[in-house]
Amino acid sequence: MTPPDTRRPSDPSVADLKSAPKQLGLFQSHGRIRVATDGCGFTDVTGDAARFLATSGADTGLLTLFVRHTSASLTIQENADPDVLADLKDALASLAPSGAHYRHGCEGPDDMPAHIKTMLTCVSLAIPVEDGRMVLGTWQGVYLIEHRSKPHAREIALLFQGSFR
Amino acid sequence: MTPPDTRRPSDPSVADLKSAPKQLGLFQSHGRIRVATDGCGFTDVTGDAARFLATSGADTGLLTLFVRHTSASLTIQENADPDVLADLKDALASLAPSGAHYRHGCEGPDDMPAHIKTMLTCVSLAIPVEDGRMVLGTWQGVYLIEHRSKPHAREIALLFQGSFR
Amino acid sequence: MTPPDTRRPSDPSVADLKSAPKQLGLFQSHGRIRVATDGCGFTDVTGDAARFLATSGADTGLLTLFVRHTSASLTIQENADPDVLADLKDALASLAPSGAHYRHGCEGPDDMPAHIKTMLTCVSLAIPVEDGRMVLGTWQGVYLIEHRSKPHAREIALLFQGSFR
Repeated sequence: MTPPDTRRPSDPSVADLKSAPKQLGLFQSHGRIRVATDGCGFTDVTGDAARFLATSGADTGLLTLFVRHTSASLTIQENADPDVLADLKDALASLAPSGAHYRHGCEGPDDMPAHIKTMLTCVSLAIPVEDGRMVLGTWQGVYLIEHRSKPHAREIALLFQGSFR
Repeated sequence: MTPPDTRRPSDPSVADLKSAPKQLGLFQSHGRIRVATDGCGFTDVTGDAARFLATSGADTGLLTLFVRHTSASLTIQENADPDVLADLKDALASLAPSGAHYRHGCEGPDDMPAHIKTMLTCVSLAIPVEDGRMVLGTWQGVYLIEHRSKPHAREIALLFQGSFR
Repeated sequence: MTPPDTRRPSDPSVADLKSAPKQLGLFQSHGRIRVATDGCGFTDVTGDAARFLATSGADTGLLTLFVRHTSASLTIQENADPDVLADLKDALASLAPSGAHYRHGCEGPDDMPAHIKTMLTCVSLAIPVEDGRMVLGTWQGVYLIEHRSKPHAREIALLFQGSFR
């Protein structure tokens, strides 16, 4: 998604310090996103997170998202081609296959694979915010992943710490 | 673990802003959790993290846990049925099998699988805190995962940033 | 990498609170690391992150690194034996194999595996900082992982929040 680089491999990285310390104290705001999932799959919550920042009056700082479940999780992935999300779903199913080989089966055959998929992805995401906007790349969207087969009500805790407008 | 949702799939998410920015400056406190592991497996450190918050006088903000090792890691997982942890351990062993096919073998056959398992799980966790408590869901516990076969002494760095009582 | 522990397994963890809340308000600084990758593999950015902290005058707090891409990611891994990084690269290739079985193929056969590898590793890292230094363990290095075959220009957003010298 980015153009091939023309710099020398022998010069692998360059720090680019954009700002001196801002001499403004930090404050915080918190909230929730509630997601009604439709069963196993991805829900884009980028807009909800952006609305939380706008409503809070966030300027520059850190947005934390934290999912309050052990069979749903978070990821940041490509927001352009929906085939990517379908392939990611297949990849997770392949890494944590359904089957009768699990000890933990009392909540249904899709529960233990859901815990494994949660462990392999993210329970929390930390996203820097500059000028009121998450510093997401062009192709990055924020997703909740439902790992259970049936629809569920899911909750993401939000916290912004930083400067406000 | 959550009840089936009754909202429309066409209304996938709702932001629920609980608070305006708190007009109180932020402060911080840091510490350590030391864990004596008993070899490969999970150690629940939720109580230790909660004690750190209580002792610090933390009110609302962000708790960060950071494991200072490359063959042990962190996860948040179900705290109810111990079979879940046993199945997770098996799943990690399946994703990073022991064997003679690794280049890196000088620290024993369990070391390279331990590095892979660390890469697939978490080195740091960011957990929002409200009213002195981590906003964990009902079934969420915070675990250190030991990936080496023998007992080890492990250290988790803790940082709370936010408001204090 | 740590010595075998001699404490009782029945005493699995001990909180070690090093500090009372510091009664100093928190401030922040942000920047970028730009990485010219040489194709699939690991680039050590630990020194760049340390230079950002030094230039910012950071004292104690939290450093967040966030990669702005969906086919490159972050990890913290062993910095001693380069064979570890080669084995980790093989492990990721095994977990997300190349092949014709993906729906998403329009950006080349290495693109969908790159998205899966990104999902299984980290888009953001949260590293506590004490006395101007990241609290990394002896063997921990911070790496950007390029998952595409060809060289790319990658960008990591940096944010430090805490106290300054």
